[in-house]
Amino acid sequence: MQETKTLAAYVLSTQIEDIPPDVQHEAKRAILNYVGCALGGSADEAMDIAIRTLSPYSGPPAASILGRAERMDPLHASLMNGISSHVYDYDDTTPKNYMHPTSPVASALFAYASAHPVSGRDFMQAFILGFEAEMRIGNAVYPAHYDVGWHITGTAGVFGAAVAIGRLLGLTEQQMIWAIGLAATQAAGIREMFGSMAKAFHPGHSARNGYASALLAQGGFTAGERGLEGARGFAAVQAAKFDLSKITADLGKTYELRANTYKPFPCGIVNHPTIDGAIQLHNEFHPAPEEIAAVRLRVAPLVLDLCNQTNITKGLQGKFSVYHGAAIGLVRGKAGIQEYTDQAVNDPAIKRVRELATATGDPSITEDQANIEVELKSGKTLTRFVEKSLGNLHRPLTDRQLEEKFQNQAILAIPAAQAESLIQLCWNIDSLEAVSTLTKAASLNL
Amino acid sequence: MQETKTLAAYVLSTQIEDIPPDVQHEAKRAILNYVGCALGGSADEAMDIAIRTLSPYSGPPAASILGRAERMDPLHASLMNGISSHVYDYDDTTPKNYMHPTSPVASALFAYASAHPVSGRDFMQAFILGFEAEMRIGNAVYPAHYDVGWHITGTAGVFGAAVAIGRLLGLTEQQMIWAIGLAATQAAGIREMFGSMAKAFHPGHSARNGYASALLAQGGFTAGERGLEGARGFAAVQAAKFDLSKITADLGKTYELRANTYKPFPCGIVNHPTIDGAIQLHNEFHPAPEEIAAVRLRVAPLVLDLCNQTNITKGLQGKFSVYHGAAIGLVRGKAGIQEYTDQAVNDPAIKRVRELATATGDPSITEDQANIEVELKSGKTLTRFVEKSLGNLHRPLTDRQLEEKFQNQAILAIPAAQAESLIQLCWNIDSLEAVSTLTKAASLNL
Repeated sequence: MQETKTLAAYVLSTQIEDIPPDVQHEAKRAILNYVGCALGGSADEAMDIAIRTLSPYSGPPAASILGRAERMDPLHASLMNGISSHVYDYDDTTPKNYMHPTSPVASALFAYASAHPVSGRDFMQAFILGFEAEMRIGNAVYPAHYDVGWHITGTAGVFGAAVAIGRLLGLTEQQMIWAIGLAATQAAGIREMFGSMAKAFHPGHSARNGYASALLAQGGFTAGERGLEGARGFAAVQAAKFDLSKITADLGKTYELRANTYKPFPCGIVNHPTIDGAIQLHNEFHPAPEEIAAVRLRVAPLVLDLCNQTNITKGLQGKFSVYHGAAIGLVRGKAGIQEYTDQAVNDPAIKRVRELATATGDPSITEDQANIEVELKSGKTLTRFVEKSLGNLHRPLTDRQLEEKFQNQAILAIPAAQAESLIQLCWNIDSLEAVSTLTKAASLNL
Repeated sequence: MQETKTLAAYVLSTQIEDIPPDVQHEAKRAILNYVGCALGGSADEAMDIAIRTLSPYSGPPAASILGRAERMDPLHASLMNGISSHVYDYDDTTPKNYMHPTSPVASALFAYASAHPVSGRDFMQAFILGFEAEMRIGNAVYPAHYDVGWHITGTAGVFGAAVAIGRLLGLTEQQMIWAIGLAATQAAGIREMFGSMAKAFHPGHSARNGYASALLAQGGFTAGERGLEGARGFAAVQAAKFDLSKITADLGKTYELRANTYKPFPCGIVNHPTIDGAIQLHNEFHPAPEEIAAVRLRVAPLVLDLCNQTNITKGLQGKFSVYHGAAIGLVRGKAGIQEYTDQAVNDPAIKRVRELATATGDPSITEDQANIEVELKSGKTLTRFVEKSLGNLHRPLTDRQLEEKFQNQAILAIPAAQAESLIQLCWNIDSLEAVSTLTKAASLNL
């Protein structure tokens, strides 16, 4: 089969008018959520370090970085947008393959659009097609690829950025095939980095390298033409088992944006049912933290595979601890960015409850579910079974909830009024004459 | 075990004085060979495209690119040095793991040294330790890693560049551990790209990303601290079988530079015995090309795995064709860069002999050996069995042969007299006060 060629032809020939309205609306939700996350993470220390360290290597500062005053060349700006939008693990997730799909694509596109004239229509078209490409490639190698330890956002993401930028650049089919090949040979990112700044580097790396792949292909830099399906192509090398038909089946008929979800909480999605249930118990019973004697969790086995961290001293580690998730839900009744700071993980009340918590993996519990049992010193026991976690496909955040999430993050970077008008720009992105209107409103020093 | 930490401590504590003189001399041979290859490849179309495409994204042009007049920032210069030095497949090879080990390390180091003051002593030290690190990491995952389709020069190479630049930057042990982690999460490059420009992109990508890993780690950008040995670290993710003890066994006692070889011919090393034998037959019998009726090769089975290309129209493809190797040896009696041009592969006499050639994989033939049987129209048969191919560990190129190889390539980029003095600078690199003396002599527009 010729998956690379078929995909290249599809992403070059599809027009925005071919894409159903609900998919277009979902794209706007993804973009709104993404811009909020990028603003929320823009002041993180990882951003300060990356910008300070790499600025001497930046080309002319033609591009803006979401939420920052500094400008860099578009490739570096792509990298920085990728870091900020993922650094709090608050961006979108597709439960079917555990990708964070918007960051690699949108990080490159917003960097590009801040430096070059791009209409909202062309931007949306490129975004939806880049999203579709990376998701289908991710689906083809999931779960073997993820299970062995690849961070699929880093690996499959580079294809999304290459396709999206390649579409904006107007590549020929031959060039798009090379761009996909150059992306395939740069696909990288391992789960061993979880809990460090390097995790957020992954979507940035994908965005930057995918963008560069499209540029090089346009310039005539050749690559293997079976980057996806070749005997030593992406799928064969990075997955013990794969199904290439998932790349091309029903192209133009089904849309992967419909599989996207938006996190209500800034941590690994598998912790969400536990947090959701803990917040429900907090809101209903208001247990005093010092009265809590035991916390027993029953969760899907994958939760313990991904989020079993104990002995936590850093905020980042808290994101990979289902115990921390239970503790903040019970103690604070919420789980926002402020519950994943170094300060929060060392808060004595939270620390105490976290260290009381135990968890059992239970194959009868799905990844959308959790059972929380809280024993109080009084002997009373509070329990909650979460059947469908908030934010999952069956109980998605509403547009209004997404706006609230956006506001809560955006005000960390820009004034509230500016955030409000930015929300409207995101909802109306497809009618913008130039997306730079949006990137200007999302940066400091207008 | 703590391979990452052990390796980090070793590369930070070892001094040039700890390294035996024969290893130091081998390092100079590797550097001489590398600089020649970088000059020889510097005018290739892949270089023109990459420099033209990425120049708008380059930071201040503080660094020189070997063999070129253009200057770029040191990260981009690392990338370009990596491309030029590998684009003709003429650089060094370690038969034990099929790496091209010098390019990722030296490409980053020469870019760095052209932009910052570095003594020859410090350069040599960093080079030898970077080489050692990447080779040991490569050994740990070879052959499973290579067999599944990874281009080990791209994957293991990034560690060499990170370690070498990290040593020059004077990283702390914690920072070096992060640098290795950041390298691990950027390790990439697949064999599906062989036969296209993207293959040469791999060592450049390694050099650039390893260099950036060291910079980011120095700036405090954190990474997983078990990048090599972690459950989802480099080895576990990129190799179905691995032996981590190869990273740390006999550190400081054995040296991987002793395993290095220098190619007499600019193509995949597994073709060399065939070419060597074909040249011997040419020199001894001078068969007229039109008199050749059949060419029958018996080669190691790996040769047909790697170099079985037929229907060749591009010079690059010729490098992956044992049939082309036999044809140029028989017809021209040599196999230099000029025998791997588009023109050469379409030369009617070469094309005819190439298309007559057949090959059989024979497990009794080692990868250093080949058997060539040439049947002439007269009915006479010429045969040659090559027992140890020129350039292999048992029959290495002499220093003088390396100088000749250097001259043949360098004159494609710089005047012969300049090349001659550059040879002396390479042999005396360890006594240079500043390696920029060498990088200036290796660039255009002094």
